[in-house]
Amino acid sequence: MSGWSAPTQDTLFVLNDVLKITESDLPGYDQLDEDIVQAVVEGMGKFCGEVLAPLNPVSDAQGCTRHEDGSVSTPEGFREAYAQLIESGWNTIAMPEEFGGQGMGHVLGTVFEEYMNSACASFMMYPGIVGGATSTIISAGSDALKEAYVEKIVSGEYLATMALTEGHAGTDLGLMRTKAQPQDDGSFAITGEKIFISGGEHDLTENIVHLVLAKLPDAPAGSRGISLFLVPKILPDGTRNAISCASIEHKMGLNGSATCVMNFDGATGWLLGKEHGGLAAMFIMMNAARLAVGVQGLAHAEHSYQRAAAYALERKQGRGMGERPDPSAAADSLLVHPDVRRMLMDARAFAEGFRALVLWTAMEIDRAHAGDREADALVSFLTPVIKAYGSDRGFETAVDMQQVLGGHGYVKEWGMEQIVRDARIAMIYEGANGVQALDLAGRKLAKDGGAVAMRFAALVEADLKDAPEWIAEPMARALGDTREAAGWMLENAGEDPNTLGAASYAFLEMIGVVAIGWMWVRMVAAVEARDDGFAEAKRITARHYAQSTLPLTSALRAKIEGGAQNLMALPEDAFLRA
Amino acid sequence: MSGWSAPTQDTLFVLNDVLKITESDLPGYDQLDEDIVQAVVEGMGKFCGEVLAPLNPVSDAQGCTRHEDGSVSTPEGFREAYAQLIESGWNTIAMPEEFGGQGMGHVLGTVFEEYMNSACASFMMYPGIVGGATSTIISAGSDALKEAYVEKIVSGEYLATMALTEGHAGTDLGLMRTKAQPQDDGSFAITGEKIFISGGEHDLTENIVHLVLAKLPDAPAGSRGISLFLVPKILPDGTRNAISCASIEHKMGLNGSATCVMNFDGATGWLLGKEHGGLAAMFIMMNAARLAVGVQGLAHAEHSYQRAAAYALERKQGRGMGERPDPSAAADSLLVHPDVRRMLMDARAFAEGFRALVLWTAMEIDRAHAGDREADALVSFLTPVIKAYGSDRGFETAVDMQQVLGGHGYVKEWGMEQIVRDARIAMIYEGANGVQALDLAGRKLAKDGGAVAMRFAALVEADLKDAPEWIAEPMARALGDTREAAGWMLENAGEDPNTLGAASYAFLEMIGVVAIGWMWVRMVAAVEARDDGFAEAKRITARHYAQSTLPLTSALRAKIEGGAQNLMALPEDAFLRA
Repeated sequence: MSGWSAPTQDTLFVLNDVLKITESDLPGYDQLDEDIVQAVVEGMGKFCGEVLAPLNPVSDAQGCTRHEDGSVSTPEGFREAYAQLIESGWNTIAMPEEFGGQGMGHVLGTVFEEYMNSACASFMMYPGIVGGATSTIISAGSDALKEAYVEKIVSGEYLATMALTEGHAGTDLGLMRTKAQPQDDGSFAITGEKIFISGGEHDLTENIVHLVLAKLPDAPAGSRGISLFLVPKILPDGTRNAISCASIEHKMGLNGSATCVMNFDGATGWLLGKEHGGLAAMFIMMNAARLAVGVQGLAHAEHSYQRAAAYALERKQGRGMGERPDPSAAADSLLVHPDVRRMLMDARAFAEGFRALVLWTAMEIDRAHAGDREADALVSFLTPVIKAYGSDRGFETAVDMQQVLGGHGYVKEWGMEQIVRDARIAMIYEGANGVQALDLAGRKLAKDGGAVAMRFAALVEADLKDAPEWIAEPMARALGDTREAAGWMLENAGEDPNTLGAASYAFLEMIGVVAIGWMWVRMVAAVEARDDGFAEAKRITARHYAQSTLPLTSALRAKIEGGAQNLMALPEDAFLRA
Repeated sequence: MSGWSAPTQDTLFVLNDVLKITESDLPGYDQLDEDIVQAVVEGMGKFCGEVLAPLNPVSDAQGCTRHEDGSVSTPEGFREAYAQLIESGWNTIAMPEEFGGQGMGHVLGTVFEEYMNSACASFMMYPGIVGGATSTIISAGSDALKEAYVEKIVSGEYLATMALTEGHAGTDLGLMRTKAQPQDDGSFAITGEKIFISGGEHDLTENIVHLVLAKLPDAPAGSRGISLFLVPKILPDGTRNAISCASIEHKMGLNGSATCVMNFDGATGWLLGKEHGGLAAMFIMMNAARLAVGVQGLAHAEHSYQRAAAYALERKQGRGMGERPDPSAAADSLLVHPDVRRMLMDARAFAEGFRALVLWTAMEIDRAHAGDREADALVSFLTPVIKAYGSDRGFETAVDMQQVLGGHGYVKEWGMEQIVRDARIAMIYEGANGVQALDLAGRKLAKDGGAVAMRFAALVEADLKDAPEWIAEPMARALGDTREAAGWMLENAGEDPNTLGAASYAFLEMIGVVAIGWMWVRMVAAVEARDDGFAEAKRITARHYAQSTLPLTSALRAKIEGGAQNLMALPEDAFLRA
């Protein structure tokens, strides 16, 4: 049965025809013409298909091993693949030229992220945080730290981690206990236990640079008392720092990624950013990580879609009710069954629409880096949506695609159930999706009285003017529901402090529905003058989205306007069964 | 962390206050008074909590083992637990007295099914088919077969399987190749390979009775040429039949259940029902199995809800925006967060509403067995809904409850991810959920021009008259959407043969939404005169359902009225990525 291959045609369509990246004068984009873009996209696809994809089933079956000395082995083939990755240079494509990267912009970097995650999601976890970690060190680190670490992380010689969570403090970082004691030489001694550290220990690089949240002795209580530190596994003098991996988790999936409990026993580290300013420094990294998680949702959706589509075409079961491809055959392909198509069309509509959205957002990030503050605000507004809506739909798509395979979808050897297990974590880590919803409703929507949300709505609306009625009309209705819901939330937030929290998840889903719908409007416009098969498929898929997904906003709006009162009414103890 | 305990209070509420089973004069119900019902329900809960629940994590970690001689060992403790089950007699509670059962009716049998599935779903797979198998043999078997097998299956001395699927023929049974050759003594020699046979081989009972679909030499093509046979592992003379387990599957979950590839090499069997009438005979068993799968969805929802509720109450993270239970604490329980409550209230609303629905349906089955043809038609109409909507929402609830645990939900030792993996198969087996939807829309709705559907709607409507407006009004709207959608489907089915298939899934979801809403109306009525905490919790949960779930029907109706044309428009090859 077929596995995954890079969806280069669709990627190139978004880059060239929708975003028109080769016409942009953003920094780094001047290197790009259509030939280079094609060569890069195809090269990245080839690397991921040939080097990473074969590791995916192996890594799931084998997992990681922690040895008695605390060292951790990654699955067979990961070391060689990592060496090939560095050799290929694809890992540095979006990295700043100043530190040895190729500076081609986030758009192409995001394409590579999608492909790596589709090919082998657990492998991708090791380099996954590199972009965010380098941004953090560049913007918050001293010159000495930048010089010592950034180039080596960019090149792939070192890898990095994000060490935030503690056993009793997940989302609520203010509760953390890890301590940082100032030393005479300006360094800090870090002591504490961190859990759920992806790639906390492994055998891919000699050094691992941990970015660790901890509290200084004079720290104010809560999340305003947290500082961020750079704590390397190997110190500059070549000795081992006082860091050890106490254990690795046994998880539902993503088995090739070592999820570590890490002990810091007076380990030497250096401050990143200001004292007690760790949260701000961390959010540079966290926002990058959240967007990356959304891309994982895309990758799982695309990978599972490809397997299910191939299966549906090959598998002969039942007979169609309408025109049959071969009336004399005992059975037709699964594609004659409308309900099988429903699942596959849902998957296409999400994967292609969401690909456009994450690549559009990546380009906005490049705009923001070039100083465009409106782009920055839009990225900030959409970050929780991309993280949560993307990972929710990515998981759901994988579950639907597993369904297309029937019983084979549940059996390990067919590879579908692994995608479901691997995809599940994306809804949880880097801020559980409910936390993303609260960020959107409580911070991004309410903070400025809805101003960014209005700008987003205006952008969408502007593109509806020239759109064909079959998509413009349901989009306008969905946008109207969203505006009404946002207005209702802002009006009622003062009266009941739980209003925004109660409405948050449905509101995030509405923005997700509308944002992807917007991308379909733009894609339909991009193929307006074409009548080839690709253009026709885009129109059919867009229409499916308009008919199946856009109507959801009315139910979401009704949910929101139900308010918080009844949600908060049940006494806490009544949640337990008598 | 707490695991599962039997939700006896809620069960007893449904049995006594909603269904009033002790007041019914249905056969077998005359044995029941409230004391007996309470003793039975609590006894079943105690058995499942003490004997089965401890096996659940062990069975997942250990799975089943097939040995070189083709024998299969179940996980540690299953043999002892199975012996205790037979000893307890709970397994025979709903079985016909004529064959050694206790004849107390399907309602109490269904309670036991729920509890067993919550406690250890993979264990439940072994006795899971017993009810359907005995019904099939009783109604389709010769007197000799009945005498030889039914009592031994009822008592638990033998177990049974359903052997339908072949490698190339899943849903499409007409394609099957297994052959049955008539022998001179009236028996048949069965030859072929069956896959996905739950409990095809194991060490719990000496004999295993396979109910096998096969084709006679003169069989017409397709599904009208299938016959059903009883094929025991051990023949009446004590010798082994020519049946062997070729392998067991490695699956996403339900590891304690041995899913076997079974070879029949001229095995001796006897006809059940008429020649070429296997499909009808099989559907006796299949309908029972489908309802049982719905009960699995309930069980997974309840089990995961209990774990998540306990975690949410214990785990202190973040501070509430409204009134805080303890303003001086550094953090509150997760229950102060509206979005955490959203997930838990969704889970309650589904689990409690669906419990009422499956127990109501079980009582209708008892009515149908007593000769009530309207009850029979209603059960037949709701069977695909209970199977598919129940397993979909059961899985989704488990996924949501996993989310409440954050990162711990993804780690094996917390027990939540196992529920998700175990729950996933329910959407696939015994007819994938898309097949259920087609059964509902194509057979149950369209066959009689919508007559049963109208009767169902009339029953619901009758209960809305006395309901409070806060639930009567949204229920009436949901019912209106459903009627409009059904009307639209019936009107358009003639024009485009794919109409019903395209609409089927959304229609099934609508019926599920309305049927559970109906049960909430009835539960609200049952606590009308009470103002204790239990009654208040019922009203709060009902209101949550009315606000959050009932509005979905408008979006589902819009989806349905989108029609089939665009869904079928994409050429088959265009589903593959270029």
